[in-house]
Amino acid sequence: MTYRAPINDMLLALNHGAGLQAAVKAGHYGDFDSDIAAAVLEEAGRFASEVLAPLNRIGDENGIKLADNKVTTAPGWPDAYRRWTAAGWNAVSGPEAFGGQGLPLAINAACTEIWSASNIAFGLCPLLTLSAIEALAAHGREELKKIYLEKLVSGEWTGTMQLTEPQAGSDVGALRSRAERAPDGSYRITGTKIFITYGDHDMTDNIVHFVLARLPDAPAGTKGISLFLIPKFFVNADGSLGKRNDIYPSGVEHKLGMHASPTCTMTMGDNGGAVGYLIGEENRGMQCMFTMMNQARLGVGLEGVGIADRAYQQALAFAQERRQGRAIGKKGDGSDPIIVHPDVKRMLMQMRALTAAARTICYATAVALDVSVRAADPKVRSLAAARGALLTPIAKAFSTDIGSEVTSLGVQVHGGMGFIEETGAAQHYRDARITSIYEGTNGIQSIDLVTRKLAANGGESVWALLAELTEIVIRVETSNDPAFGTTGARLRDALMSLDRTSRWLLERVASAPNEALAGATPYLRLFGSTVGGCMLAGEALAARDLEGAGDPERYVMLARFFAENITVQAGSLERTVMDSAEAVNGADAVLLA
Amino acid sequence: MTYRAPINDMLLALNHGAGLQAAVKAGHYGDFDSDIAAAVLEEAGRFASEVLAPLNRIGDENGIKLADNKVTTAPGWPDAYRRWTAAGWNAVSGPEAFGGQGLPLAINAACTEIWSASNIAFGLCPLLTLSAIEALAAHGREELKKIYLEKLVSGEWTGTMQLTEPQAGSDVGALRSRAERAPDGSYRITGTKIFITYGDHDMTDNIVHFVLARLPDAPAGTKGISLFLIPKFFVNADGSLGKRNDIYPSGVEHKLGMHASPTCTMTMGDNGGAVGYLIGEENRGMQCMFTMMNQARLGVGLEGVGIADRAYQQALAFAQERRQGRAIGKKGDGSDPIIVHPDVKRMLMQMRALTAAARTICYATAVALDVSVRAADPKVRSLAAARGALLTPIAKAFSTDIGSEVTSLGVQVHGGMGFIEETGAAQHYRDARITSIYEGTNGIQSIDLVTRKLAANGGESVWALLAELTEIVIRVETSNDPAFGTTGARLRDALMSLDRTSRWLLERVASAPNEALAGATPYLRLFGSTVGGCMLAGEALAARDLEGAGDPERYVMLARFFAENITVQAGSLERTVMDSAEAVNGADAVLLA
Repeated sequence: MTYRAPINDMLLALNHGAGLQAAVKAGHYGDFDSDIAAAVLEEAGRFASEVLAPLNRIGDENGIKLADNKVTTAPGWPDAYRRWTAAGWNAVSGPEAFGGQGLPLAINAACTEIWSASNIAFGLCPLLTLSAIEALAAHGREELKKIYLEKLVSGEWTGTMQLTEPQAGSDVGALRSRAERAPDGSYRITGTKIFITYGDHDMTDNIVHFVLARLPDAPAGTKGISLFLIPKFFVNADGSLGKRNDIYPSGVEHKLGMHASPTCTMTMGDNGGAVGYLIGEENRGMQCMFTMMNQARLGVGLEGVGIADRAYQQALAFAQERRQGRAIGKKGDGSDPIIVHPDVKRMLMQMRALTAAARTICYATAVALDVSVRAADPKVRSLAAARGALLTPIAKAFSTDIGSEVTSLGVQVHGGMGFIEETGAAQHYRDARITSIYEGTNGIQSIDLVTRKLAANGGESVWALLAELTEIVIRVETSNDPAFGTTGARLRDALMSLDRTSRWLLERVASAPNEALAGATPYLRLFGSTVGGCMLAGEALAARDLEGAGDPERYVMLARFFAENITVQAGSLERTVMDSAEAVNGADAVLLA
Repeated sequence: MTYRAPINDMLLALNHGAGLQAAVKAGHYGDFDSDIAAAVLEEAGRFASEVLAPLNRIGDENGIKLADNKVTTAPGWPDAYRRWTAAGWNAVSGPEAFGGQGLPLAINAACTEIWSASNIAFGLCPLLTLSAIEALAAHGREELKKIYLEKLVSGEWTGTMQLTEPQAGSDVGALRSRAERAPDGSYRITGTKIFITYGDHDMTDNIVHFVLARLPDAPAGTKGISLFLIPKFFVNADGSLGKRNDIYPSGVEHKLGMHASPTCTMTMGDNGGAVGYLIGEENRGMQCMFTMMNQARLGVGLEGVGIADRAYQQALAFAQERRQGRAIGKKGDGSDPIIVHPDVKRMLMQMRALTAAARTICYATAVALDVSVRAADPKVRSLAAARGALLTPIAKAFSTDIGSEVTSLGVQVHGGMGFIEETGAAQHYRDARITSIYEGTNGIQSIDLVTRKLAANGGESVWALLAELTEIVIRVETSNDPAFGTTGARLRDALMSLDRTSRWLLERVASAPNEALAGATPYLRLFGSTVGGCMLAGEALAARDLEGAGDPERYVMLARFFAENITVQAGSLERTVMDSAEAVNGADAVLLA
């Protein structure tokens, strides 16, 4: 079956759960008209259903090929990519000065979910280009921007981000690729990069590589890394393409999933070194990377949301079609669709609720990042920046963790058919698995949350968020709507757990860092479960107040399910954080015995 | 890396966690000497490491092939199978009257874990043969036993179990394969079966199929199903093989994992119908199936344990080797193995603790099933049968769920390398996924637990188990060993949650079955987390009392980790069961909007 973007759910999440409408009303989005969101998402949904979704399985089955130093993508992919750029989808949030539409990141976030849902391996390519655009726009010299930025914004050329080397994964500072200064002001780069997404392909004429390397006199570690722009083909003065640069794909990985997305080993220096142009300053490459980190991590979080929704839609359709057994108490002949069985309903609700919560967390992150650059008031900008920074690791890790959970449930709903590749459920399960790993493993996101985001300003941005979420809980409680069940109590308990756990960790970050690190992963889960539960409740409240929201009670039921099944775990996660550090840090006695 | 059977952990789990030693001492195992366990497991571990483990990846990469109505297995597999039977591994728990060694099921359970860990796709074949042996031994006529049983026990021939048809998966009663009575007392079977594991292969000369079909005058549903033995090749009076029977593999599935295990579509009737021999009575096939269900489900649970342990061992080795980053506070140059990082320790402890708990639950199930047939006292037998029946769905579902969780953590520990097939971590993740589905989906196990096992005798077997587990908790509490941390409190809370939830469900099974069904899955998880936590604590206490147990504190630390990270969720699972039935059963408003 194909994919249909759940426009109503997305708009409710964007406008109300994530606070876009309030931010627009407060003037933080300038003259942006939030009505445009519906139109953009409708169009994006149509393009995704018609063009991208049908290529998802073809991409998985055909994969990519490397021969003669060239990567060939799956049948239909170059054509789809051309249609993608022609329709302007690459340029949604790109800077207007370089041909972009300048739409908010929040709109592009919703679009990213749609691309990921319809075809996650395809959608990954523009995600990388977006990072390249950010790096170039923020740190590139004007002459480089003039040559490359417009082509990247339109998508005529794609971008790559090249950090990883065999000995330098999470530990970027260990990278060894070398850059030598050339007399003409450019650099000659040599070395080998691995795991380079879309490092080569046949969808565009040119590729703009962004490569981290080390100058001969650079200090050790992350303080000695510089960022270089390395075009696959040089660009002549008239804008035409010149000769080939010395950067080639020398291998491609055979992966668990994402078969259609080439993951390349890139070799530089077989012919004297790749010619690169410095971005930003020498030895300040990591700072350039930090510029784009929030948005790239949010993008991966949205992949989690998208693949989860795709798996949910497919499982829901299967559960309505597949007949096995009878509903309790049903008389007569014949069997019922399996959706009548409570255990199947539970799985589908779990899938939907997790997806909805992760979606809103991601959208809220995008709104915060938007406001941090769009608001007029510097204080508003600064608070929004802190909120965006706080939510980013949660958006990335919680959403991708649930991406794997939801796609696994999708397999389970299909029963034996779920294990058969032809069904397609297994592809989502395979594809989703990388999202918890790349762009900073989820363990690293948790550590970032505890040691940098929570610890910034004595936890101020956490307390600010908790205060806002408490407002939602009060409204749930005072609504006196019995359909909320125990939602209010669960959310309130969770907020208290999150508050106590945050204070405990904040103290430990300074006094006993290994204890804080031991609790980082359950803390992030506690955070996501609490924030997600509150935001879904906020959406449900908004739906009740909206004209023409269809049946608002379904949002109440969904928020309730999440609170009673996911947020309810907050208390045990709190205890795990506080109690289990000793067992974690004493693990060597068990593991190395 | 290869696999090494964790003999010490297995023996502690078997003898103390699962209660084998106590049962032997009580005389329930007759003259069985439990010292033999260590010797058998050592030998099994050696065979697995040397013969089976090296074929695991080869099997995955080569898969199986179907051509000319014949399935060919991966290179080296037929030879390994011959060595397997020659070494007597197929016959460990087989009946002595037919050449088996007659060892307890508990010993074979530990062996099954070893086979699954070293090569889950290989180990699956004898698991099916075991079910065939059980069916034939319990329900077959003497003349059939004489021809087939010895060959199945030795493994010279393998067995298949053929239930599933396209419209009949979980709903076995919907099957349509037809059996016609032939004048000679045999039957002619026609129809198509799907998802038949090792339905055909080249590892043995003959295959003995056990097929469910329906007589022309059979009542509808499960009450009209008969079981037939259908040999691939007929057996002549002198024991030599005769002509080919009319049952052929007509297709094989392309699956997410278990590539080396052929999953066949079997067609009967292209040449007049397969000749089958009735097992048990006409229309009583489901009863024959129930005979072997406990053991088959336990076998699949042990697959979960095995694949989890394999993933754990691989992740542990990787974490000791792979260097990235530095331990907190470490000075000097160079990076540390990632096992120094608390978040990596947490993942490894989670893997190990979940695996250990599932192992003990499975072994305890095996001991109960042993005692239910070996004890002299009928009352002891009957209580053990109830215990085995109660634990079976937990052994199956909890162990296979954690199989997927642990193999996923195994991928995560490997970082980006985990997503690369060459690493092998991804294979475990793919292979494990089917175990939650086949032999009764885990949803069906949960329903079985609530509606049949809990509800039997007013919950008597649950209360009996809880009483035993409470004894362990008291011993933890009175041990006053600070190394247990909050273990005692967590286990006590969990036992109370399990008690309250069981009573709540017991009442609902009768009065509001859909509410009971809605909570079945979280109830099973609550059950597994509680029983597993108590059993690990029991093992830790035993280790402290044992001479020469090495460092017993490591078992205390592991039990503590499990209690503080897994069992701690009991309270929230209790609330989920009791609170969320309304949202589950009202899900249509959300799902079908």
